[in-house]
Amino acid sequence: MIRVLLVHDARLLRSGLAELLGKARDITATCTPWRSAERAARATRTDVCVADVDERNGESRDLTELMRHTSPPGCRLLVLATAGRPGPLRHAFEADALGFVNKDASPDQLLTAIRQVAAGERFVDPSLALGFLQASQLPLTQRELSVLSLAAEGASVAEIAASLHLTNGTVRNYMSAITRKTGARNRVDAICIAQRSGWL
Amino acid sequence: MIRVLLVHDARLLRSGLAELLGKARDITATCTPWRSAERAARATRTDVCVADVDERNGESRDLTELMRHTSPPGCRLLVLATAGRPGPLRHAFEADALGFVNKDASPDQLLTAIRQVAAGERFVDPSLALGFLQASQLPLTQRELSVLSLAAEGASVAEIAASLHLTNGTVRNYMSAITRKTGARNRVDAICIAQRSGWL
Repeated sequence: MIRVLLVHDARLLRSGLAELLGKARDITATCTPWRSAERAARATRTDVCVADVDERNGESRDLTELMRHTSPPGCRLLVLATAGRPGPLRHAFEADALGFVNKDASPDQLLTAIRQVAAGERFVDPSLALGFLQASQLPLTQRELSVLSLAAEGASVAEIAASLHLTNGTVRNYMSAITRKTGARNRVDAICIAQRSGWL
Repeated sequence: MIRVLLVHDARLLRSGLAELLGKARDITATCTPWRSAERAARATRTDVCVADVDERNGESRDLTELMRHTSPPGCRLLVLATAGRPGPLRHAFEADALGFVNKDASPDQLLTAIRQVAAGERFVDPSLALGFLQASQLPLTQRELSVLSLAAEGASVAEIAASLHLTNGTVRNYMSAITRKTGARNRVDAICIAQRSGWL
């Protein structure tokens, strides 16, 4: 049996996905929202963790933290992603995701991907290939994207600093670097450029 | 039997939702992405159309157009919405939606809502109530929100004009009104304010 932990914030959507997985005889699925994902990962023995990477992209440590808490430690990560959003894709890559499935894939494709990832093999949805190319050209580091995501949610410099365990000065330096690298007129412009480009 | 047409762009997610609905003996569900929703609405006899209103909020005519094409004409609209996003909620209200279900609801709540809406009764998820109040205080008209949504996606004035069947001058007038009403410094700032406030 492949034990899957399914992480998605909208209960209706994660229940639906769990229902799809439940039809496969070789898979048992447990599902959880992000806020209790680490606890669930510790409490449940998991072979493959399936997470919607479009959510929570602001908190770049989340996926890595989540995987650190999975039991047993060898658990694999498979992410559900959207074409045209290179930011979350790179985030997943940096968290050592082994599987990348398009949210527009068929249920059968998801099952195939889960089985492949459970066997330790990489799975990349061909329709996400362009996103990987875009991700490789993304001008901002993951840390800069985390700072910018929090700014986009309306957080102040002090709030961003507290959230990412940085000093206010360091956050300001990141914001200057972001504005410069994106060629933005100011911070607000940088946020818009990043959102339009699918980086956040 | 209640005939449900389920509209969601991500195939995995709509398949999962269809699977949930399929477990109820009094419901049959057909599902479709937005791009073929009108065709599906014409081709399939539908009692309740269930649509994820967080998607496609830029094109404000979509929900109304969709309902105009449903067969039979008396079909009811139930939307899946997110708390804290008053924009899509108002859009659904203006498209005469009868049901409003939180995406974080349980599968049973969705089934209850579908049965109630199919019987011609209104269903409003209590957890969305605050969003309605916020929607009533939203300073922009639905038309202004459509213009701003397209601008947020990176469309030029000419592209927005073509998409909404307006002249370039009218679009510029809308943009000025939007900037003034939101107290924004400029167009880019207005987009950020709107995204942070959950209007788009």
